[in-house]
Amino acid sequence: MRKLINDVDAFIDEVLDGVLLAHPNELVTALGERRAIVRADAPGGRVGIVTGGGSGHLPLFLGYVGTGLCSAVAVGNVFSSPSAEQVLAATKASNGDRGVLYLFGNYGGDVMNFALAADLAELEGIETTTVLVNDDVLSAPAARIDTRRGVAGMVLAVKCAGAAAEGGDDLAEVTRIANKAVAATRTAGVGLSPTILPAAGKPTFELPDGYMEIGIGIHGEPGSHRGPLETADEVTDRLVAAVLDDLPAETHRVVLLVNGLGSTPLEELYLLYRRAHSILKARGIEVHRPYVGEYATSLEMAGASVTVMSVDDELCELIDAPANSPFFRQ
Amino acid sequence: MRKLINDVDAFIDEVLDGVLLAHPNELVTALGERRAIVRADAPGGRVGIVTGGGSGHLPLFLGYVGTGLCSAVAVGNVFSSPSAEQVLAATKASNGDRGVLYLFGNYGGDVMNFALAADLAELEGIETTTVLVNDDVLSAPAARIDTRRGVAGMVLAVKCAGAAAEGGDDLAEVTRIANKAVAATRTAGVGLSPTILPAAGKPTFELPDGYMEIGIGIHGEPGSHRGPLETADEVTDRLVAAVLDDLPAETHRVVLLVNGLGSTPLEELYLLYRRAHSILKARGIEVHRPYVGEYATSLEMAGASVTVMSVDDELCELIDAPANSPFFRQ
Repeated sequence: MRKLINDVDAFIDEVLDGVLLAHPNELVTALGERRAIVRADAPGGRVGIVTGGGSGHLPLFLGYVGTGLCSAVAVGNVFSSPSAEQVLAATKASNGDRGVLYLFGNYGGDVMNFALAADLAELEGIETTTVLVNDDVLSAPAARIDTRRGVAGMVLAVKCAGAAAEGGDDLAEVTRIANKAVAATRTAGVGLSPTILPAAGKPTFELPDGYMEIGIGIHGEPGSHRGPLETADEVTDRLVAAVLDDLPAETHRVVLLVNGLGSTPLEELYLLYRRAHSILKARGIEVHRPYVGEYATSLEMAGASVTVMSVDDELCELIDAPANSPFFRQ
Repeated sequence: MRKLINDVDAFIDEVLDGVLLAHPNELVTALGERRAIVRADAPGGRVGIVTGGGSGHLPLFLGYVGTGLCSAVAVGNVFSSPSAEQVLAATKASNGDRGVLYLFGNYGGDVMNFALAADLAELEGIETTTVLVNDDVLSAPAARIDTRRGVAGMVLAVKCAGAAAEGGDDLAEVTRIANKAVAATRTAGVGLSPTILPAAGKPTFELPDGYMEIGIGIHGEPGSHRGPLETADEVTDRLVAAVLDDLPAETHRVVLLVNGLGSTPLEELYLLYRRAHSILKARGIEVHRPYVGEYATSLEMAGASVTVMSVDDELCELIDAPANSPFFRQ
């Protein structure tokens, strides 16, 4: 283990302690639930947006709570869903009588607990809608798109929906935007090393040094291809092809997000960006806005993902809107 | 090797291609020298600030070229100094007849090539000053402070000097601020794993799994203590003690930067922040502003550093000033 931790069981609570100590003016704990973290100025007359999921993916999910982003997050243990009670606490803290959108990744435990929270919220008179992020093209074929997992594309969906909520849109409109953003977004990733769960102390799966797994999930779910590591350009060609094959042919303008999974240096991410940008340009596709860095990680996994969001004027405006959290600023 | 690269010899040039493709409105190449990257709006009537050093440390150095930061950077190969010609090109592109500050880390090759560039700049009628960053307290005892290496504290020195230059200060004043910032800043770090140089393809040094090296340099220079890995709190206690022991006793307000070296998850960095903040609070020291994340890395090294800058009203104002680059925004 190469981890700087204290008590494994207290890991995430201590992380949250650190986050709240560092950013007391931006983030607060929901009343009575330390695993629900809320914008300090929520609800503020806006539609709420609650996200959440397992920990170990920072800046996802907690990092996208802020101005022009989500209103609150429910924080699970490492790679484990938050509870319905935690989601409910985030919901109540987000609700200003304009309703709350649930926007999170398509994972069984999260789906179950957010659904339960929605029922509990309804009993308290809070209207909710749900949009699942399922951008990982290699996690299932197009025919089973509703079983695909959500990965880094989450960030772009949050960016768009958050901008709509910040601009005063109502719940139906924020929900429409979130659905539109998800429908326009595809991601494909590669892993070069396994992750080590703090509680287990050993790798979650085996991946020999010098090998890569295309399509790997951010919890180490099996991918679509395992083989000897190829060059950055060859890997990028695979990822971009997978993404573009699944997007509408009339894609002419995109947001391009190259995301590091944890221990791949930023230098290498820019090699992927370089190749992806060039492929898009050769196809006549303009990059409206680039994002390169660590946006959705998997602890210390080596690897990266490429996300392409096909955008029109409406999505461009939402993507370009200001946003501000302790982890994300533009 | 778990690296996403193409041709080892072209690695950094391809990285720069990617950076310039992604951020064409913010960063440009200096005339005739592709390894000198300049703010698109330089010189703009401001005092120039040129930084630089070896690659492999992103967002250092290139990431701190932008509004309220540096005007240009000279980019060396991985862990290798840039040439004097590259520094000179960055200097000429930064010069608007108000002179140029050289602000970089205290490493032999960098010192030599920046000095040579200063001579060449003088021949062209460009006034330069030099401030070396030497914040790494564990790289040499206080009696030999002028031999200490520069690490993550560089970011805070750049932030302050950059704010002064952006505000219109003259070269003498920007230089005074840089010297004041460096004098007020101390860093101590820990490594949990070695780095792998792309050109070598093997670790730069041996560090067994489950061990830590306190005081390790960002190129793998030997530290002051090697032993079995301790808890996050114990490691933080060591780092904060080393830093505070070397700062003036009258330190009452600080900037606290917890920096990841490459593959340590953000979650773990917040454990270090939590402990460091608590230690400072117990000593009656207020954290004026926190920074937690990857600010100065060492490729994929696991580990972290803690930087403390003792601040007065003047430094607080400069630290709080807006800054904007593709890699750093506040």
